[in-house]
Amino acid sequence: MAGTEVERLIGLLARLPGLGPRSARRAALHLLKKREALLQPLTAALAEADSKVKTCQVCGNFDSVDPCTLCADPEREASICVVEDVAGLWAMERTGLYKGRYHVLGGVLSALDGVGPEDLGLDRLLARVGRGEAAEVILAIGATVDGQTTAHYIADRLTASGITVSGLAQGVPVGGELDFLDDGTIGAALRARRPL
Amino acid sequence: MAGTEVERLIGLLARLPGLGPRSARRAALHLLKKREALLQPLTAALAEADSKVKTCQVCGNFDSVDPCTLCADPEREASICVVEDVAGLWAMERTGLYKGRYHVLGGVLSALDGVGPEDLGLDRLLARVGRGEAAEVILAIGATVDGQTTAHYIADRLTASGITVSGLAQGVPVGGELDFLDDGTIGAALRARRPL
Repeated sequence: MAGTEVERLIGLLARLPGLGPRSARRAALHLLKKREALLQPLTAALAEADSKVKTCQVCGNFDSVDPCTLCADPEREASICVVEDVAGLWAMERTGLYKGRYHVLGGVLSALDGVGPEDLGLDRLLARVGRGEAAEVILAIGATVDGQTTAHYIADRLTASGITVSGLAQGVPVGGELDFLDDGTIGAALRARRPL
Repeated sequence: MAGTEVERLIGLLARLPGLGPRSARRAALHLLKKREALLQPLTAALAEADSKVKTCQVCGNFDSVDPCTLCADPEREASICVVEDVAGLWAMERTGLYKGRYHVLGGVLSALDGVGPEDLGLDRLLARVGRGEAAEVILAIGATVDGQTTAHYIADRLTASGITVSGLAQGVPVGGELDFLDDGTIGAALRARRPL
């Protein structure tokens, strides 16, 4: 019904996370209506991201320089925060509370998806720890089954180095109402209760 | 935190309908992870859509040819279906039930948004009807207040031509449960009830 160019564009947009076939059609029409304001700038931004953005060989972050801005910053503290992916790194940075460095796993251990320790760049992490780059490793991995398995595996591998290994606290999210929380979260918050 | 190229890409993706800041970040990361499979094809598809896709000067459809494939098809029946936008045209085409031609308004009358009759290409529509291009005009405009105002306005303008003007039936959607429908829809379905 639409031209093949439009069909192809819709098909590719539908492969973005968060966009289904219907929203991909809406997005394609929106782009075709706003050519100078959106379609052309987006085309240019995609091409530029493709040509300039690299993966940091030290930590796995995305940046236009390698090592990335965070790894190259001498002001950053001597700790390494292990995150599942770059989205986790961005989430940590948005808090503005963490001033150290990172290690991006690029996934979590998963027998089902065939993700083993060698896929997570753990040799790089252990080498950095071995060189004394960090006084502490903070495991900021999602509280899923695979995530927690991965965190325990990494903690085990780091034991020999004698470095401090910590994990994010589990508990009630800020603004969270008990009635809307799952039992596991409430249980974890109860076990980790603290004096006020 | 991310490079400026990534920030710019996220900012542009967030302007697509259906994508907020969070899903734009996820989409950008997904694109950077799948460069050959997604980022580069999407860049090419956007550039090609920009260079090849035009607005049909007859009906307002998007296509790589002008007049569009639908307008140029001699098999199409002599009726004109008036839709609000190209998304409406695609929705009609997906039914496979309509075999006529189209007029894409590009919006609906809206005093608030400053959309007047001259913005909807009605002169083009009236000229096509005047040339005898259609035996019937079907108003397939959304059942919103502005949409229905627009439909009535167009029907009025077409009265002088003596052509048959019809509108889509209102009623209970297929699979719709009464309990989940608004009173207006149930009322419309009751008034338009038919013998079984």
